[in-house]
Amino acid sequence: MLPAIAQDAETGEVLMLAYMSPDSYAETLATGRAVYYSRSRKRLWRKGEESGHVQQVRAVYVDCDNDTILLSVHQVGGAACHAGYKSCFYRQVTPQGLKIVGQRVFDPEQVYKSGH
Amino acid sequence: MLPAIAQDAETGEVLMLAYMSPDSYAETLATGRAVYYSRSRKRLWRKGEESGHVQQVRAVYVDCDNDTILLSVHQVGGAACHAGYKSCFYRQVTPQGLKIVGQRVFDPEQVYKSGH
Repeated sequence: MLPAIAQDAETGEVLMLAYMSPDSYAETLATGRAVYYSRSRKRLWRKGEESGHVQQVRAVYVDCDNDTILLSVHQVGGAACHAGYKSCFYRQVTPQGLKIVGQRVFDPEQVYKSGH
Repeated sequence: MLPAIAQDAETGEVLMLAYMSPDSYAETLATGRAVYYSRSRKRLWRKGEESGHVQQVRAVYVDCDNDTILLSVHQVGGAACHAGYKSCFYRQVTPQGLKIVGQRVFDPEQVYKSGH
């Protein structure tokens, strides 16, 4: 299981980090859509399977140690985060605590019927 | 121990992924320089301690699940990768195999006396 970073192909924004199993990596390469492995649900996680917000993979990179994957993606729907933000990294660490700096694209209540 | 992504503050390029312990995270926030935890050497890894190529931290973000850190950094020396490339993700996965697409900034032989 390796960490995989998804980066917006158009803006360069780092969208999220998830994990890939050999199966999810193979399916990502074969289909051109980001497929991760959900450690909490213990199964393949075809990103966007519930929300429709799939990630179309433009390019795949590996790091020098062969233990991290970087995906350059087009994020359908404009938001990678289940909380409705463009990026999962929508909070900045400041001396005053966490500050929301991200851009909210959708309301999760409207997208997920049964919560997430 | 959490994964931490370092992103170039100027270009948006994803430079590397490493890991942070509570101690390395605290020292990063306190000093404004990226400090990781080396899993192979089992100790704090003050990025650039050997090469001089430190990372000056411009901003720190956390993801929605509070289990990944994103650093926006200025990379002194222009290269984050010990192999001399700007980014550790200097190889692209293509149908023909791995292809070097990154930009080499320095020769590791000149920077590390005893290899890496």
